[in-house]
Amino acid sequence: MSILVVGSVALDSIETPFGKVNDILGGSAVYFSTAASYFADINLVAVVGKDFPQEHTDFLASKNIDIKGLQKEEGDTFRWKGKYGFDLNEAHTLDTQLNVFEGFNPVIPDEYRDSEYVFLANIDPDLQMEVLGQVKNPRMVACDTMNFWIEKKREELKRTIEKVDILIINEAEAREFACEPNVVKAARNILSMGPKNLVVKQGEYGALMFTGSSIFSAPAYPLEDIFDPTGAGDSFAGGFIGYLANTHNLEESAIRQAVIFGSVMASFNVEDFSLNRMRNLDYNEIEHRYRKFKELSHFEDV
Amino acid sequence: MSILVVGSVALDSIETPFGKVNDILGGSAVYFSTAASYFADINLVAVVGKDFPQEHTDFLASKNIDIKGLQKEEGDTFRWKGKYGFDLNEAHTLDTQLNVFEGFNPVIPDEYRDSEYVFLANIDPDLQMEVLGQVKNPRMVACDTMNFWIEKKREELKRTIEKVDILIINEAEAREFACEPNVVKAARNILSMGPKNLVVKQGEYGALMFTGSSIFSAPAYPLEDIFDPTGAGDSFAGGFIGYLANTHNLEESAIRQAVIFGSVMASFNVEDFSLNRMRNLDYNEIEHRYRKFKELSHFEDV
Repeated sequence: MSILVVGSVALDSIETPFGKVNDILGGSAVYFSTAASYFADINLVAVVGKDFPQEHTDFLASKNIDIKGLQKEEGDTFRWKGKYGFDLNEAHTLDTQLNVFEGFNPVIPDEYRDSEYVFLANIDPDLQMEVLGQVKNPRMVACDTMNFWIEKKREELKRTIEKVDILIINEAEAREFACEPNVVKAARNILSMGPKNLVVKQGEYGALMFTGSSIFSAPAYPLEDIFDPTGAGDSFAGGFIGYLANTHNLEESAIRQAVIFGSVMASFNVEDFSLNRMRNLDYNEIEHRYRKFKELSHFEDV
Repeated sequence: MSILVVGSVALDSIETPFGKVNDILGGSAVYFSTAASYFADINLVAVVGKDFPQEHTDFLASKNIDIKGLQKEEGDTFRWKGKYGFDLNEAHTLDTQLNVFEGFNPVIPDEYRDSEYVFLANIDPDLQMEVLGQVKNPRMVACDTMNFWIEKKREELKRTIEKVDILIINEAEAREFACEPNVVKAARNILSMGPKNLVVKQGEYGALMFTGSSIFSAPAYPLEDIFDPTGAGDSFAGGFIGYLANTHNLEESAIRQAVIFGSVMASFNVEDFSLNRMRNLDYNEIEHRYRKFKELSHFEDV
């Protein structure tokens, strides 16, 4: 099964307590696609500038990522510059240059319009709606967003969320969106807006997945070396939706497993800068870490 | 099996966004004893003043709590006044009056000296050592501490920790004690000081339990109404050590179950002010919530 993803491709400059890198491959659609490529075929829709290095395009093409939808426009590629302190949970944005991303108009190639799985990465909710207008009856649509859209385009965002099956956001965003400090109440509130499932990412504390009737708590993988958290959320979404597309099963037990596969991919991603750790995984490593999650959280019945 | 606990008995005045109470029963030894009393017999050593209400003494005696070691001294009972904002993770201390607790000299009654399980609640590490000097060959000793002792009595605390089997502290304390922001590295560092197990409490995110060779991640119970977090850590310790004493099994699988029973008791405790929720539980409710933790964190193998 193939997955359509629409989001950003960026050149990131990142500083962490462990090092500093300039103009490395990044962007929500890139992290998502790379993580998801271990599970399914990916159709990527995004925009880059004329300065986008050929080696990055080649890398994406070398995975199961179809780049027909990767538009190349006059101008420079979206650039993000950020810094993390020892508390790696929060990125401090130093500079954002939208460049060609500012005028991004996602045109879904005909061949992608019957993608059964759709991931709307963190872009303007109006563009997310435009994408949904171009796809034919997908089996599952998931979306991400960020505090900027919650604050600036709350009503537009609500209209998008009404149309999606699974919303994947972080905990602070969930609280802010629902105007409710308690995460369980915030989740109930958001589910009442339309989505069947809500995944609340809690960074180094794991993730919660809410359905109308149950809650699943997924642990985080306890890493001794978290090198660079950039892209962890999109890598999570990639493993999560990748697994669902792979098994083509949307029962709760499969969605729970998908949350773990998402956590697995996020845990790999943060072990090195950029896509470095996710570039050349093999599926055995992924399954091995899945089993580690199982050991980590196992306890006997009483 | 009986458990010896040495800690504080207090009269707390607490303000949360949901209400305000004055001079209610509190203190580390009280929360611990009440939670643990559902699993084992408790021998309590603490100090109160002449003003300590008889109804509180009667309440403790009405549980399986032996109060022979509850000293009554001239002066007033220890008082703590605190406030929580909507972020219920952090207590803001408004006032502390040590009163009789300032001169607390824990004398362990003869009948308690062969307690097989010992919990040293959060008191001066020098007093914790004095307690250990008075007990005969316990099967398991666990202890708690706080940032105040980590900062003021680091060396004394290290000497205590060298002698204990299980250290139970919160995440910020673990990082501070080890001078290490990464919780996994901090845990390895602390384990190298002596304890066989370390439990790192993460508040609304659950708990991690470290042994020399493995890590267990326990979820938190997602509550819609967290009324008053006071005593959650001590209720956790009570359920945890209570279960170990009850089963008299110190294998890792039992310790993992004990972490869940600790989480169960903490989750009950925060549902109301003071001990109100824990006063009259029945064991079926406790087991029922244990099974809820199982459902909450269950996912299938691959």
